[in-house]
Amino acid sequence: MAHSGTPPPQAVHHELRTAENSAGYLLPTLAELHKANPRLRLLDVGAGSGTISATLAKAIQPDGHVIATDIEADILPRAKAVADLAGITNIDYQEADVLSRLPFEDSTFDVTHCHQVLAHLPRPADAIREMLRVTKPGGIVAAREGDLETECVWPDLPGLAKFHTLAAAVISMAGGSPKAGRQLLSWALQAGVSRDQVTPGLGSWCYSEPQERKVWAQGMVDALQKGRLRSIGLSSKLATEDDLQEMVAAWEEWASADGAILGMMQGEILVRKV
Amino acid sequence: MAHSGTPPPQAVHHELRTAENSAGYLLPTLAELHKANPRLRLLDVGAGSGTISATLAKAIQPDGHVIATDIEADILPRAKAVADLAGITNIDYQEADVLSRLPFEDSTFDVTHCHQVLAHLPRPADAIREMLRVTKPGGIVAAREGDLETECVWPDLPGLAKFHTLAAAVISMAGGSPKAGRQLLSWALQAGVSRDQVTPGLGSWCYSEPQERKVWAQGMVDALQKGRLRSIGLSSKLATEDDLQEMVAAWEEWASADGAILGMMQGEILVRKV
Repeated sequence: MAHSGTPPPQAVHHELRTAENSAGYLLPTLAELHKANPRLRLLDVGAGSGTISATLAKAIQPDGHVIATDIEADILPRAKAVADLAGITNIDYQEADVLSRLPFEDSTFDVTHCHQVLAHLPRPADAIREMLRVTKPGGIVAAREGDLETECVWPDLPGLAKFHTLAAAVISMAGGSPKAGRQLLSWALQAGVSRDQVTPGLGSWCYSEPQERKVWAQGMVDALQKGRLRSIGLSSKLATEDDLQEMVAAWEEWASADGAILGMMQGEILVRKV
Repeated sequence: MAHSGTPPPQAVHHELRTAENSAGYLLPTLAELHKANPRLRLLDVGAGSGTISATLAKAIQPDGHVIATDIEADILPRAKAVADLAGITNIDYQEADVLSRLPFEDSTFDVTHCHQVLAHLPRPADAIREMLRVTKPGGIVAAREGDLETECVWPDLPGLAKFHTLAAAVISMAGGSPKAGRQLLSWALQAGVSRDQVTPGLGSWCYSEPQERKVWAQGMVDALQKGRLRSIGLSSKLATEDDLQEMVAAWEEWASADGAILGMMQGEILVRKV
């Protein structure tokens, strides 16, 4: 299948990630499964701030049910607050580590989903295998992961090229992959599924409007001035203070350039468990 | 605006490029303009084999009209045959060079379109300026161009990396740009339009099914064994016979790998003439 795969992008820094903008490749299949089984059960692995989990729960109201998990127990009350605020009640929260063992029986869920999780794991195929374990035969494992190496930016500022190299190095140092998107299919095969069980795709997102540029650039500047890019960059000697300042100045120049644009591809897979 | 922008991709080597798969970003606006003016006039610049031109003509039947142009007069009878075969009659063909002067009065067309043309021109902003000249105030200039540097391929074979470098060098040597997609917006601004006249996007396409891999790889092998990549690669000393053979072997390995995938981003702009 050749397809573009994504609806409008998630926008990490200025709008909520939702099922619509971050799991669009899954929604038609989810609707089909939900129609066949109104009491569908969905597991969201690595729910983070929980906005995708909550909008997935909304998509399978009233009788479908979501369990949203994260390895960081601290984030789950915040995720719950998001759903509470929206009056979404068909969702529960639970701490879980997909790389040790998910606290669920085999064949529990109709759909097991993750978003921007596998890219940060040292053994992504093991995570997919564990997601398959808890999924019912005939059910779906769905994953969407960025492919940082496809980052596409204009203007071509040297400070942005340095930034890209630093960001990719920090992901790699943490055991993740800056080429996750393109590897999703191969990870699924390593997890033991056959090629014809997988529907892969590469979607894309794009920022270029003035307000989008401003908000995105501010997020990058924050990461460079007080986030992990700064702390890991300096402690690992991947960047000097001067390098970080050059990157900050480049993002500020980018944000103010009328011809500026930024995009990235997102790998997407639907795996049917047999 | 942040959007993914494309419907299913053009598939150069195994299906026809159509308005649906190669100009999807334009179709909603075209439908709107056509509704307001059933006698809409559309110019297609660099029509090539003419399949997009013909399907654009079909989209504005019966009273809309397309003129399909190309700098190569020889290709136009073939383009006409495509439309004739499909019974599409609201289209005419004419030789034209967008970088010298299009043979049309100012403000002639409601929509002026090109696809994979600007990436190959030494002065793309001049081409956009000329497209704007022949477009009516209130009309649209639409362009979609690949961004070869976003090419995203797995597995990570050294022969494919060499191929990418060769392909980008051949485009650059011919005066084109391997980063055309991301530059479309800046080229439009260079052509004299203001930022708020332009709606830019980055779409994507993806091949991974066995039949898609086979057909795509065969196209690449043909280019390496008897096409421009071979002739220019060797004559410019960008590649040796051994390099070309390594690239051929890499595409054959890619085609036979179950985990293989290939994608690329496509820049897209709609420019409203004021």
